[in-house]
Amino acid sequence: MRGQKIGFIGLGIMGASMASNLLKGGFEVHVYNRSPLKANSLAEQGAKVALSIASLADEVDRLLLCVTDDHAVEEIIFGPEGVIESGCEIRSIIDFSTISPSSAREFGSRLEEIGVSYLDAPVSGGDVGAREGTLTIMAGGSEIDFEQAKDVFTWLGRKIVHTGPVGSGQLTKCVNQLVVAINVAAMTEGLLFAQESGLDLVKTLDVVSSGAAGSWALTNYAPRIVAHDMRPGFYAKDMLKDLRIALAEADAEDLPAPVSSLVKELYTAMCRSEDANLGNHALISLYRKMLREE
Amino acid sequence: MRGQKIGFIGLGIMGASMASNLLKGGFEVHVYNRSPLKANSLAEQGAKVALSIASLADEVDRLLLCVTDDHAVEEIIFGPEGVIESGCEIRSIIDFSTISPSSAREFGSRLEEIGVSYLDAPVSGGDVGAREGTLTIMAGGSEIDFEQAKDVFTWLGRKIVHTGPVGSGQLTKCVNQLVVAINVAAMTEGLLFAQESGLDLVKTLDVVSSGAAGSWALTNYAPRIVAHDMRPGFYAKDMLKDLRIALAEADAEDLPAPVSSLVKELYTAMCRSEDANLGNHALISLYRKMLREE
Repeated sequence: MRGQKIGFIGLGIMGASMASNLLKGGFEVHVYNRSPLKANSLAEQGAKVALSIASLADEVDRLLLCVTDDHAVEEIIFGPEGVIESGCEIRSIIDFSTISPSSAREFGSRLEEIGVSYLDAPVSGGDVGAREGTLTIMAGGSEIDFEQAKDVFTWLGRKIVHTGPVGSGQLTKCVNQLVVAINVAAMTEGLLFAQESGLDLVKTLDVVSSGAAGSWALTNYAPRIVAHDMRPGFYAKDMLKDLRIALAEADAEDLPAPVSSLVKELYTAMCRSEDANLGNHALISLYRKMLREE
Repeated sequence: MRGQKIGFIGLGIMGASMASNLLKGGFEVHVYNRSPLKANSLAEQGAKVALSIASLADEVDRLLLCVTDDHAVEEIIFGPEGVIESGCEIRSIIDFSTISPSSAREFGSRLEEIGVSYLDAPVSGGDVGAREGTLTIMAGGSEIDFEQAKDVFTWLGRKIVHTGPVGSGQLTKCVNQLVVAINVAAMTEGLLFAQESGLDLVKTLDVVSSGAAGSWALTNYAPRIVAHDMRPGFYAKDMLKDLRIALAEADAEDLPAPVSSLVKELYTAMCRSEDANLGNHALISLYRKMLREE
């Protein structure tokens, strides 16, 4: 349903690109961001900039969120200056943030009570996927809410999956992040072994990436490490945050996750330093510190 | 150089298929196996079956090995009934077995002293790769020995890499196996999380395999687990053996490998039971035992 009015809150690396793609899709996009400067570039692209959540909520009946954490989502929806308290007409919320599955379930049921639909729809694919509209979207909620969100999803993602009821989007994201983090650790220990045993790294990667050891991490991150490029495609600190969410969920389910837990501890150690702001593939920097006698 | 005489010792799942492909390549292949029954099918394909290592060594000047472990390689080459003691004319040995890098180096230098060339050339690609001649071959040795082995390698592998001096083939295999094992653990903990949190496994795999969490393990093993197919493409007990080799090497280099070590401990636990004879992807069976109150 093109031309429909949409509110978008959270114009970080991901959110700004997503809002931009919705403008290209012909939506009337009203944006709000806590740091208003980030809205400038979108205003140039045709977005209408709201100065408060309440004023944005007055203009639209659908709200999209892409913010940092559970607390930010809660403040925007239920806080004293949030959407609900503003007495607005918003009837539908799509939350692209990565938050805990239990928070998503709680937000979903509180909203259901007051007749507002909620989809938890975390994404993966990073800055590139957001920019190119090729994200993977894992959406939890009712079948009908999912169907009604497709006009938006189509402009943002390539792989769009209805994962189940509210919360299941976040659970699926947990699975994804657990596997990514461990695969990064696999790449790290493999590269380090190769390096310390004097192997040619480029040859080794060529051999190892092509067979049973192959992974997205090995193909995409290992060459960056060989090139000493530790810039973030995805922040190490966000990997730690996502691991914390996933492992808190596992813990609540009495589910042992020994390897994930160890990898989380490694990210915890790594993120005590400025390395938190490097890419998640820079985990190898922690190992290199271990190798030195400092 | 087609038509050349070649000796092949070790007709397990891998070796039998490799010898068969060399027959197709036009080589005169003389085979020997400790359990002689395994040579029957190759005899039907045209291989000449030797009744002892010494009698095989009398017929050929190149020897190929694909056996279980360091001890087996040592016995065949240097043992009282082995190749060297037989006083034969073998001038070149290609060892496809996965053994420790230090054993490979030792064998290589002992052979060099008596004028016999040695390549350590472990493979990956499993039973399918061996059958179809699409193995990855990681060959360590001199440039000239590598070049002279290409007539053989061509019939066995698709990706054929000269990794460096003797021992470097095994070191590269170590890297490969460390990464495979950890990727399997990643898949295992991801699948288990999905299962225990009530997600649809097929949908979850569809989402997770396609993005940054993707891996060969996830694509190839996870569907087998969903289908309860734990048959070995690669034995769990061989994964444990390879992890032991790699981690002994890491230990000798004072190289910390925390995640690899934890995964090795998990395989150690798994391989105490009959599950040792399942596929390496059956690691999830260990976790399932942890989940039950037994």
